[in-house]
Amino acid sequence: MSGTAMVRSRGIHYLQQLKAANIPLDLIEKGQNRVIDASLTLIRERAKLKGELLRALGGVVASPSLLGVPLGHNSSFLQGPAFAPPRIREAIWCGSTNSTTEEGKELKDPRVLTDVGDVPVQEIRDCGVDDDRLMKVISESVSLVMEQDPLRPLVLGGDHSISFPVVRAVSEKLGGPVDILHLDAHPDIYDAFEGNKYSHASSFARIMEGGYARRLLQVGIRSINKEGREQGKRFGVEQYEMRTFSRDRHFLENLKLGEGVKGVYISVDVDCLDPAFAPGVSHIEPGGLSFRDVLNILHNLQGNIVAADVVEFNPQRDTVDGMTAMVAAKLVRELAAKMSK
Amino acid sequence: MSGTAMVRSRGIHYLQQLKAANIPLDLIEKGQNRVIDASLTLIRERAKLKGELLRALGGVVASPSLLGVPLGHNSSFLQGPAFAPPRIREAIWCGSTNSTTEEGKELKDPRVLTDVGDVPVQEIRDCGVDDDRLMKVISESVSLVMEQDPLRPLVLGGDHSISFPVVRAVSEKLGGPVDILHLDAHPDIYDAFEGNKYSHASSFARIMEGGYARRLLQVGIRSINKEGREQGKRFGVEQYEMRTFSRDRHFLENLKLGEGVKGVYISVDVDCLDPAFAPGVSHIEPGGLSFRDVLNILHNLQGNIVAADVVEFNPQRDTVDGMTAMVAAKLVRELAAKMSK
Amino acid sequence: MSGTAMVRSRGIHYLQQLKAANIPLDLIEKGQNRVIDASLTLIRERAKLKGELLRALGGVVASPSLLGVPLGHNSSFLQGPAFAPPRIREAIWCGSTNSTTEEGKELKDPRVLTDVGDVPVQEIRDCGVDDDRLMKVISESVSLVMEQDPLRPLVLGGDHSISFPVVRAVSEKLGGPVDILHLDAHPDIYDAFEGNKYSHASSFARIMEGGYARRLLQVGIRSINKEGREQGKRFGVEQYEMRTFSRDRHFLENLKLGEGVKGVYISVDVDCLDPAFAPGVSHIEPGGLSFRDVLNILHNLQGNIVAADVVEFNPQRDTVDGMTAMVAAKLVRELAAKMSK
Amino acid sequence: MSGTAMVRSRGIHYLQQLKAANIPLDLIEKGQNRVIDASLTLIRERAKLKGELLRALGGVVASPSLLGVPLGHNSSFLQGPAFAPPRIREAIWCGSTNSTTEEGKELKDPRVLTDVGDVPVQEIRDCGVDDDRLMKVISESVSLVMEQDPLRPLVLGGDHSISFPVVRAVSEKLGGPVDILHLDAHPDIYDAFEGNKYSHASSFARIMEGGYARRLLQVGIRSINKEGREQGKRFGVEQYEMRTFSRDRHFLENLKLGEGVKGVYISVDVDCLDPAFAPGVSHIEPGGLSFRDVLNILHNLQGNIVAADVVEFNPQRDTVDGMTAMVAAKLVRELAAKMSK
Amino acid sequence: MSGTAMVRSRGIHYLQQLKAANIPLDLIEKGQNRVIDASLTLIRERAKLKGELLRALGGVVASPSLLGVPLGHNSSFLQGPAFAPPRIREAIWCGSTNSTTEEGKELKDPRVLTDVGDVPVQEIRDCGVDDDRLMKVISESVSLVMEQDPLRPLVLGGDHSISFPVVRAVSEKLGGPVDILHLDAHPDIYDAFEGNKYSHASSFARIMEGGYARRLLQVGIRSINKEGREQGKRFGVEQYEMRTFSRDRHFLENLKLGEGVKGVYISVDVDCLDPAFAPGVSHIEPGGLSFRDVLNILHNLQGNIVAADVVEFNPQRDTVDGMTAMVAAKLVRELAAKMSK
Amino acid sequence: MSGTAMVRSRGIHYLQQLKAANIPLDLIEKGQNRVIDASLTLIRERAKLKGELLRALGGVVASPSLLGVPLGHNSSFLQGPAFAPPRIREAIWCGSTNSTTEEGKELKDPRVLTDVGDVPVQEIRDCGVDDDRLMKVISESVSLVMEQDPLRPLVLGGDHSISFPVVRAVSEKLGGPVDILHLDAHPDIYDAFEGNKYSHASSFARIMEGGYARRLLQVGIRSINKEGREQGKRFGVEQYEMRTFSRDRHFLENLKLGEGVKGVYISVDVDCLDPAFAPGVSHIEPGGLSFRDVLNILHNLQGNIVAADVVEFNPQRDTVDGMTAMVAAKLVRELAAKMSK
Repeated sequence: MSGTAMVRSRGIHYLQQLKAANIPLDLIEKGQNRVIDASLTLIRERAKLKGELLRALGGVVASPSLLGVPLGHNSSFLQGPAFAPPRIREAIWCGSTNSTTEEGKELKDPRVLTDVGDVPVQEIRDCGVDDDRLMKVISESVSLVMEQDPLRPLVLGGDHSISFPVVRAVSEKLGGPVDILHLDAHPDIYDAFEGNKYSHASSFARIMEGGYARRLLQVGIRSINKEGREQGKRFGVEQYEMRTFSRDRHFLENLKLGEGVKGVYISVDVDCLDPAFAPGVSHIEPGGLSFRDVLNILHNLQGNIVAADVVEFNPQRDTVDGMTAMVAAKLVRELAAKMSK
Repeated sequence: MSGTAMVRSRGIHYLQQLKAANIPLDLIEKGQNRVIDASLTLIRERAKLKGELLRALGGVVASPSLLGVPLGHNSSFLQGPAFAPPRIREAIWCGSTNSTTEEGKELKDPRVLTDVGDVPVQEIRDCGVDDDRLMKVISESVSLVMEQDPLRPLVLGGDHSISFPVVRAVSEKLGGPVDILHLDAHPDIYDAFEGNKYSHASSFARIMEGGYARRLLQVGIRSINKEGREQGKRFGVEQYEMRTFSRDRHFLENLKLGEGVKGVYISVDVDCLDPAFAPGVSHIEPGGLSFRDVLNILHNLQGNIVAADVVEFNPQRDTVDGMTAMVAAKLVRELAAKMSK
Repeated sequence: MSGTAMVRSRGIHYLQQLKAANIPLDLIEKGQNRVIDASLTLIRERAKLKGELLRALGGVVASPSLLGVPLGHNSSFLQGPAFAPPRIREAIWCGSTNSTTEEGKELKDPRVLTDVGDVPVQEIRDCGVDDDRLMKVISESVSLVMEQDPLRPLVLGGDHSISFPVVRAVSEKLGGPVDILHLDAHPDIYDAFEGNKYSHASSFARIMEGGYARRLLQVGIRSINKEGREQGKRFGVEQYEMRTFSRDRHFLENLKLGEGVKGVYISVDVDCLDPAFAPGVSHIEPGGLSFRDVLNILHNLQGNIVAADVVEFNPQRDTVDGMTAMVAAKLVRELAAKMSK
Repeated sequence: MSGTAMVRSRGIHYLQQLKAANIPLDLIEKGQNRVIDASLTLIRERAKLKGELLRALGGVVASPSLLGVPLGHNSSFLQGPAFAPPRIREAIWCGSTNSTTEEGKELKDPRVLTDVGDVPVQEIRDCGVDDDRLMKVISESVSLVMEQDPLRPLVLGGDHSISFPVVRAVSEKLGGPVDILHLDAHPDIYDAFEGNKYSHASSFARIMEGGYARRLLQVGIRSINKEGREQGKRFGVEQYEMRTFSRDRHFLENLKLGEGVKGVYISVDVDCLDPAFAPGVSHIEPGGLSFRDVLNILHNLQGNIVAADVVEFNPQRDTVDGMTAMVAAKLVRELAAKMSK
Repeated sequence: MSGTAMVRSRGIHYLQQLKAANIPLDLIEKGQNRVIDASLTLIRERAKLKGELLRALGGVVASPSLLGVPLGHNSSFLQGPAFAPPRIREAIWCGSTNSTTEEGKELKDPRVLTDVGDVPVQEIRDCGVDDDRLMKVISESVSLVMEQDPLRPLVLGGDHSISFPVVRAVSEKLGGPVDILHLDAHPDIYDAFEGNKYSHASSFARIMEGGYARRLLQVGIRSINKEGREQGKRFGVEQYEMRTFSRDRHFLENLKLGEGVKGVYISVDVDCLDPAFAPGVSHIEPGGLSFRDVLNILHNLQGNIVAADVVEFNPQRDTVDGMTAMVAAKLVRELAAKMSK
Repeated sequence: MSGTAMVRSRGIHYLQQLKAANIPLDLIEKGQNRVIDASLTLIRERAKLKGELLRALGGVVASPSLLGVPLGHNSSFLQGPAFAPPRIREAIWCGSTNSTTEEGKELKDPRVLTDVGDVPVQEIRDCGVDDDRLMKVISESVSLVMEQDPLRPLVLGGDHSISFPVVRAVSEKLGGPVDILHLDAHPDIYDAFEGNKYSHASSFARIMEGGYARRLLQVGIRSINKEGREQGKRFGVEQYEMRTFSRDRHFLENLKLGEGVKGVYISVDVDCLDPAFAPGVSHIEPGGLSFRDVLNILHNLQGNIVAADVVEFNPQRDTVDGMTAMVAAKLVRELAAKMSK
């Protein structure tokens, strides 16, 4: 079995042997259920504690809380994003920069940022749980955060496949579609990629099919083929390619989203940035946005941001001094400032 | 606040604000308790599932199971070991090598190796839980694994501070002291280091004070000062320094341990190896053991190994191609083969 | 002999001994001739096969075909570009990006891109062949590709010295001068550099002297001295320096070239890019073009592109994850799309 | 003692022992005085030789001379800038680029650039000299350069704490305040940072308090908190944040400074650049200036530049091929061209 | 298609399209034949020139000549060895060491080392030639070298799959089996690996089946499973595992091979070395030989060495300063000294 | 001018212009003299202060004091050793290890280690001083340290060319020859290398010619040619090659030197170590000593060590985490412990 294949099957490699040894299937299933229940209980309790503290503090309308989803096996090429959440957290609090955001919010204030920890993705997979169920666990985890008013999920990927279960949970919890601002080099809207419907290249096809989004704006696109454009048309996606960014810049730097729907969701694939600005990604695609371009878009966006994700940071490809970790962390910091109120 | 200080206080940085805002203390404590309970439940369920499967399989007397403890804040210098467990797991299953150990055991056989996942150290710390309590959570997690016969804990650090709560749990669960084979460049036996009694440089002082070990053999030592030697004498430690390794080699490659006590515990700090063989460590101390030296000691050891740890691998200092991750993984693989029966 | 000198004399180091031993000179010359003939035969056959296939396919007017020239010994500073062609090819087909170009062509279609392999530069030099003759072999290799209608050479350097024999062959084959768009941080127009008329810093002096180009537009220039400007005036070169790029941008992004001559030749030195975008070059010269700037120029250029080169990528200076290889590959991909019709 | 603390106390670690052993204090003080005198004599003689040569050459009005200040212990996070001066010098003369500046000056001409070497910062600290006195030694060294007409100091840091003693010397020597153009990601204007009034985060507070500057323009700012803005207001600083750079660009690219005062001082913290352009810095803060932005500002500045510094390059965080060293060197080269006349 | 799959199919990706377009098959086949003929002619001529020169020089009985085989697609994990031959050549002649071997031979003397260049593996594959035929081309290339008395092939891999066609050619040319000394971490004797009979993990199964070797000694083995041991027994392989190296050392450092057969073949996989000594390999397997161990075995070996290979160096995993390239080069240098007479 | 040539002429590049401009030669010479005098005064004062302190402390017979000689221009290949002294100092005091040596001495005690700083090599060269004179300055600096009883020079290179002026000064100051233990991969005993009699490859030829040593033992040799062996015989050098190290080990680990002469000098080129243990060197030569081999030789050496050097560490080739800096530092630490009494 090749290296890649072996990584993908991690967590189920010995189940063959168990089956051959006639271990009763319901023994396995009951154990899986208990592990999943315990995993969700842990997230519920962490979210509940943070929610209680903020409600006791009072005066907070919306407060982003980090939820890590260390999942990398739905990437087509590299698995590194599974290691991203702890590295991003480290960079957020790294002493080389201060804790005030560009527009003046203080990150150490729990009203601006709390953390409910990671979904134990690898432990669940190691019990032999399949992807259908894993995606449901992610959705449930997001719901558990949203139940704790005023928490709003700020999700740390993981590869881009996680945006589907996250948006699904957000939309179902709010009771209707959202508008999505999607910053990425790729449209991630294939019907399926290499036969995997949960592929990180197909998450937005799943989202649009499910009716979880009304408008989908894709910004930073520069690796797109015929299928990508056709799928875009099919779903009514507004695709802004880098080829025309200087023409579109004014429009994109003055967006107003989320009116008439349940709010705005922001999904930032760090490869929306030019690799000069973010070398630590799986798919190096030159010709992207500058970091300032992204901040201009986010700072000026008008709308009620109900949740967000920052995905596809790959620490196994970062520079020696962790430049891309700092880039991902600043995206999270500025998103948190924007979301909190 | 300096970078180092900020990292150490991670997880409690906003508690000041909450206290200032008069959040009731028991609200915090109750929430912490619920989070800790949920964390332990998750480990219990994972261990239970693995134990049930092995018992259903039958014929297994002792079976090592990985338990990750991603804790790095008790290092004096760098925090990187907190990121080690996922990297070691990745290297264990990496497709670049096969799954048979040197003496012919098959790692994919669940009787040789299972995994109960990580103690959620960072999530617990982020709820403001202090180190006294965190150390108890680690001990309880180890106990939960040991309750599931035939599982035996094979712990992935984390810095060396985790050996204290692990050995404490092993000894208490078995009802008496163990013999310890401790491979390390340093004795880690300071009374306290920089005022921290849980320091990674003090774990074996805590173990000896607690009566959890009868014999303690330290091998690979080459950075030791007067206090280290005096503490060694005080606790009756058998310290084998590298200065005399060529003289001691025959004895160390034919050890017989654990008779008259509850078994043998092995603690491998990867910096026991010369940095040529393991560059990815926080404390580079030239003049150490070769990888083959370590394997010769482990393969020939006679005794009933009841638990083990591999600690102090620092992925932030590894080579580009992850050589030290592979080194740590092979130590885990060969230990698993030795422990399983 | 210093390291640099030894590298430069690679391939002739033992000829001294042979001469001293009175080996007949014509024995050497006859052998060299046979090796060169065999080298050219190999290229002819590879080009012929690709040409036959495309003609059988039909409907193709112009089709770029890769020809590698792994020559690095005419650099003044580092020899790394000799290793570039296989790395660029690897990056072109690397699975981390798809095979569609920005404006929608499909690279897997042989009408868009074929490959005739490398000129065996190092093997020829190792037989003691001198630079005069080596440059002729490169020119002949280019001619062999052009003989196979509809193939057009898309040359992978190598250092910039190769542009002279390539352009010479293109012009002689077509029977008249071309217009050249030359993207570079340096004008490469010294009369000679360190006494070497084939230096990578003199190739465009040789081209202009030979009458192989009518217009020469140099874009991205930011390291130029008095001699560079005087030589520019002497040959009527249109030099666009980075100092005035924002003023020149509109003009450069709407070029129309090649009217009244035999076509357009494009020579891209990857150091035209700012090193933020292309760190893997021998001469780091900050303040260059962004990757998007280059694409804007290439995409909008009007003219019949008869051949092109991408040179001076130095894999020995690239980042760990090969970012500059991806940059060079995307330049080749987009050039191929532009050339094919 | 932690790693950081140990580095900060480098040079005084054994003074405790000497005090305990009753070594007479005046023995130490007399020795320190003799070492400091000898250090200043060495700088005086080097400056004198360069001044004599330029005066003998004749026709020079202003001629920048490099003075290295390898001081890194006032950084809050990393000490690497103490190693910067030799690396910048190496990059200035590195054979991978020519010796002509962008606007045509020849660096090998001593009228454009000479060098008076480094202040022996580490040797002085190792004799137990404290920071008050060390800062005076730096000021005196700058004065010694200025005494040698036509030399003007072009200072190579070191961390940003050195700008205070340098500007103090420049202003005192000239007999009045200067205007300062300060390029930086941070305002460095805290009253004190972590209790250290000489911190690299406080140097401009010291400068403004001392009355050494009339106007202080800060450009590139993107990490600033409430205190930074309040201190800015208090001292009448003109702070140009990156958030509004596209709006301010025209103004900043056409600056006229120094009228009615003794001249213009330029202080360039290399982290004013986006980390894509300068990864080798201690504080990675995405969203900065491009290298071309900085050159546009410097090339078009009108005013009599009396001295300058380039600080905060950290070679311990640079890329493998030393990209940031080349960036710092080009800043020095272009500044030298601008200063010389 | 995944990244790995795409790399493996490099060179044949557009043949599907050509077949769909009804390009006549014999057109393709004829072209392939002509390309292969030209490739072999080029090697024949290079070998002939080197042979003529040595015969003219006189007095040479055996003279190793480098033949590069840049083939990496039969690796199970990484393709990097395809880039190795030019890097090894560069390191052989690198100016940082002199040109005398440890036992006093002069590498610049053509009697000690010549070079016949690379088999154009990638160009042949790009013409759609399959592996059966490619392996024959490699065998024929080796034969062409051997036809030129006194040349003996010293082959630069490439991955280990190339040893099969090389040994086949050596044995067939000499008219009988050889004895093989095989230094490796792995036995490479699987019947097939992932369905590929030409896999780098199966080459010695092919060699033994073909009757090309009488004795096969494997030294350095430390990653072997049940199939590896069974295949070893089946073919009568003498397997020396690292587990018992200290016991076997005396025997292995005094080998006498090749009596009664046609000579000795040496195959060195650089991963026989511990990764501390050779980090640039695809399969990091700690616990290996030291560099001096390998030299002791080679220097003291008695027997007539008729050919050799050095394989599996992976430049994409080497250290920044190319340490493993130097290691591979020194292996080649010392082998050349041993072979020449 | 090539990169290498430019670096070698650093510091004198503008003297041509000054000569052309008829600057009086004695103006230059007088200035050079004043700069050299000031440089030596600075060293004298630093040494005097350290000597006074130790004499006041009392009871010290011999006390090593660091003297840095940052000279790299006499290397044949790379200049990096010029940057070594500050990096070694940093690693000596690095907080990742404690300050006790292997045999129990305390480095913070000034009796074990003091520091007199660096000879300002680069500043002196930049004034146009030639190598004859520079070598005298180094000798004088060593003498100034030795004048301050009980100081003994422990010199930090720099390349190996510095051992000649250092040993010359030691021998002249003591009034007779010393015995030298020289650990190196190379004999460094060429008559001249590339025409440079001060080359780092010729320093021991200069030492033997001058009569500064009686016995010269070279250990670790593994790159030596005919001239090296002949020069060895000519001067009566005892050359121990790695080829026979296993045979010589017992003798070398029990050396007794310096009887009947003025004492023992130890010169450690870090490339005596296998590159696995010390990758950060200019000349990678596999097959060397392990770190423990070197310590065994040094710890057991009997004799009065009057001075020592550690040379050829090249920080530009070190690993990311500075492993070789730590190796060089530990060599200095253990040498200091051995020298002090």
